[in-house]
Amino acid sequence: MNWYTLILTELLGTAILIILGNGIVANVVLKGTKGNNAGLVAITIGWAMAVTVGALVANALGGVAHFNPAVTVALAIADKTGNFGLASYNGMAPVGMFFLVIIFQFIGAVIGQLLVNFVYYKHIQKTLISGTIEDKLSVLAMHSTIPTERGKITNFAMEFLGTALLILAILSFGKFNSGAGLPPFYAPVLVGMVILAIGLSLGGTTGYAINPFRDLAPRIVHQLMPLKNKGKSDWSYAWIPVAAPIAAGAIVGLFFLI
Amino acid sequence: MNWYTLILTELLGTAILIILGNGIVANVVLKGTKGNNAGLVAITIGWAMAVTVGALVANALGGVAHFNPAVTVALAIADKTGNFGLASYNGMAPVGMFFLVIIFQFIGAVIGQLLVNFVYYKHIQKTLISGTIEDKLSVLAMHSTIPTERGKITNFAMEFLGTALLILAILSFGKFNSGAGLPPFYAPVLVGMVILAIGLSLGGTTGYAINPFRDLAPRIVHQLMPLKNKGKSDWSYAWIPVAAPIAAGAIVGLFFLI
Amino acid sequence: MNWYTLILTELLGTAILIILGNGIVANVVLKGTKGNNAGLVAITIGWAMAVTVGALVANALGGVAHFNPAVTVALAIADKTGNFGLASYNGMAPVGMFFLVIIFQFIGAVIGQLLVNFVYYKHIQKTLISGTIEDKLSVLAMHSTIPTERGKITNFAMEFLGTALLILAILSFGKFNSGAGLPPFYAPVLVGMVILAIGLSLGGTTGYAINPFRDLAPRIVHQLMPLKNKGKSDWSYAWIPVAAPIAAGAIVGLFFLI
Amino acid sequence: MNWYTLILTELLGTAILIILGNGIVANVVLKGTKGNNAGLVAITIGWAMAVTVGALVANALGGVAHFNPAVTVALAIADKTGNFGLASYNGMAPVGMFFLVIIFQFIGAVIGQLLVNFVYYKHIQKTLISGTIEDKLSVLAMHSTIPTERGKITNFAMEFLGTALLILAILSFGKFNSGAGLPPFYAPVLVGMVILAIGLSLGGTTGYAINPFRDLAPRIVHQLMPLKNKGKSDWSYAWIPVAAPIAAGAIVGLFFLI
Repeated sequence: MNWYTLILTELLGTAILIILGNGIVANVVLKGTKGNNAGLVAITIGWAMAVTVGALVANALGGVAHFNPAVTVALAIADKTGNFGLASYNGMAPVGMFFLVIIFQFIGAVIGQLLVNFVYYKHIQKTLISGTIEDKLSVLAMHSTIPTERGKITNFAMEFLGTALLILAILSFGKFNSGAGLPPFYAPVLVGMVILAIGLSLGGTTGYAINPFRDLAPRIVHQLMPLKNKGKSDWSYAWIPVAAPIAAGAIVGLFFLI
Repeated sequence: MNWYTLILTELLGTAILIILGNGIVANVVLKGTKGNNAGLVAITIGWAMAVTVGALVANALGGVAHFNPAVTVALAIADKTGNFGLASYNGMAPVGMFFLVIIFQFIGAVIGQLLVNFVYYKHIQKTLISGTIEDKLSVLAMHSTIPTERGKITNFAMEFLGTALLILAILSFGKFNSGAGLPPFYAPVLVGMVILAIGLSLGGTTGYAINPFRDLAPRIVHQLMPLKNKGKSDWSYAWIPVAAPIAAGAIVGLFFLI
Repeated sequence: MNWYTLILTELLGTAILIILGNGIVANVVLKGTKGNNAGLVAITIGWAMAVTVGALVANALGGVAHFNPAVTVALAIADKTGNFGLASYNGMAPVGMFFLVIIFQFIGAVIGQLLVNFVYYKHIQKTLISGTIEDKLSVLAMHSTIPTERGKITNFAMEFLGTALLILAILSFGKFNSGAGLPPFYAPVLVGMVILAIGLSLGGTTGYAINPFRDLAPRIVHQLMPLKNKGKSDWSYAWIPVAAPIAAGAIVGLFFLI
Repeated sequence: MNWYTLILTELLGTAILIILGNGIVANVVLKGTKGNNAGLVAITIGWAMAVTVGALVANALGGVAHFNPAVTVALAIADKTGNFGLASYNGMAPVGMFFLVIIFQFIGAVIGQLLVNFVYYKHIQKTLISGTIEDKLSVLAMHSTIPTERGKITNFAMEFLGTALLILAILSFGKFNSGAGLPPFYAPVLVGMVILAIGLSLGGTTGYAINPFRDLAPRIVHQLMPLKNKGKSDWSYAWIPVAAPIAAGAIVGLFFLI
């Protein structure tokens, strides 16, 4: 596999993740959509399918389908060979690939959010027209996560626990590969089920970012979008969905290194 | 495989697609049904299963399971051998098969819609009796897609993006076939997940036709049905769910040709 | 495989089908349950899982997992060897097995319904206490199907079309068995998806019996149950969910015989 | 496989089961969450995914993925070799492993519940602040099951029937292993479907514990938690979700022994 396949599938897959993932949030929270107010089941199935579809496409094209720097960090730490979990990609030093992968994940997330905002543009405008704080928060919610009850400890714990479960599952699933092995067209379905489970069970407070770029890249887009009345981008919360997943990835990665 | 297997499975599968797909819409939007007002999750799962079941039947009987001229166009373009992606069917020139496949998809879609209208006939009548514009639109909605916010650019973009993701997924999944391969009884399940994802995430504005005949054939049936008070067939919108999917299919097909 | 395995797995699987299938209806329509009024998605997923779980258990134990005389009739007709689709079971003439299978399906359905009524007994009583016609119909609905709009032609057509799709799918899936083959632990999942699709799309009018015994056996139990205020068992409708599925099974079976 | 892998995966998997399972209940019943009042479909899918994810992780790491003493009892009884269904784990007598497995399941369930209570702590407080009986019951419901209609016979029967179906399915699925076999990464998906079916269909009265520790361990946590206004832990009901599953496990295990 070529090194540019790796980073281009990360960009493409992360863009698909955000298009489909924040797409369902937009469909549920924005005014005048077909899915307005469709509820938790719609959002959690939508996000699960976003991960599954993105990973299927990336896997099919020969990628690794991380889409999430917390996953990339965990796999880099857990790799006993010191190859950052990316050894099968040649033509560049593993540490360089590690940073390139993360950069292209970020670019993919930005592109994905821009596409969501483009196709839902009229609904965003329709939602912001009232000027109420609730409607501003709806537009923020189709970008980034918003906790229901603020609390540094409980919010951090929720994001840490959710990401730890996700990465524990991903790293465990790698163990199936000894023997007949988990087919590359089946693993994304299982990971989608993990996302669905986390969303239903641990999404109740923070909205389960469990991926730094799923939260940070759209928040930057929200900050920069020239929209009247769009409201604040809530930067005081932004560190939690970045730090907690990375911490969870690092710690679960260490467990698998031992 | 014989050439008539190809076109008959396209007809049968497209009919199943429309029966099950517009069947769930009818169940949700018509008056007095068991599923009245059942919401986005019901509609999107129903359409996903419509695609999966149709494709399973067509695959099992030896067909290609396109059901969608945008898919047929994409595969024809992406086929480097110039065989329109249909080379394994002999007894007729590939270009002839290409057009026959599309024609039989259309016939299947018309038959499917006629069957939906037949089994839901009493509910269509019950819905139209009020004469209100909302009820007329409900009957149109069980035929063709209706955008929530009209806008040529955003509507076209939504249908283009949704179809592009669908066809990107389908063409990517073909890459799994090198090696052990994606079993023909499993691929339709994955494509159903893609449909579910697109419906939840990108169906919010236009109702995700992402298939010219899924929209056009039922619209023609709506136009021709001798129903009192049925309302207009909204032809001014009809070009978007035809042109955007075909454009997306052509462009994604070109990417895979390179 | 022994002949008694065949009939005992049919009894067990049909009982599971009715326990889980009419169990979800009871949970949704009876008063005071956790699932009261949970809607179309709950009912259709519940019935799909009922079929999948019953068929998984029967397949695992070596059975054929029909649970439905319309399926048994279709397979008997489509069997070109004249062995009624049951040739691999020895120790008895195929025609005798054919009738035994159907009898044990019926017994299983009766047992299943008795168990549902037993575990939901307090909720049945709570529902009937009001004496209103709606509540009586709720109790009937957890036994047998009730059409929303009565009409011999449209109701028959709905049940015929739904069953025809189910049996078309089942007979088609048999074609996957040439070659690597559809694993016996995977086929029930696909059939569950077919049931889900039919329920969402074609269940809107008649409630999709698509199985004579799923309707008839519980209706007999309803007729015989010594419950105060239980209301009528609606025998005038009872022939449709028996005749339409059998007719569909026979005709689709004939298509596969040719 | 080492004996400590067995017991540690039981602890880990049971903790995941309770985190994800009671997590979705917390999300639905507590005040101010994203999933407040999300309904039966959310809860039953959440519990199904909890079982699937827990079992995938445990299977991947080499465990047996019981998480439920009723399952452990059933497999121990059905094992004709007298090895308590745990023979492939050496380094300790099977009967010792049997008790260790059960003890570690219990510890895992307690840890899981403590983590749920920690991440949902602010929502628990918010729910209890009113002091009403309904809100106290909501907090109990995110720990243990509460029947809607009390009745020793019907409640016991519901839990017995639900567990019997679960264990019948699990023991049957083991029969697939003769021949090509049920892959260890696929079996948990099927068991999740069984849990989904039971939850939808037989969860209507008692809330389907179908696992002694899923009910008992969180109830003990509820009893000991130093929360103001938390209400009673409903110990008079606690024996049913313990005794009925164990009885069902023993009886179904005996059937498979014969």
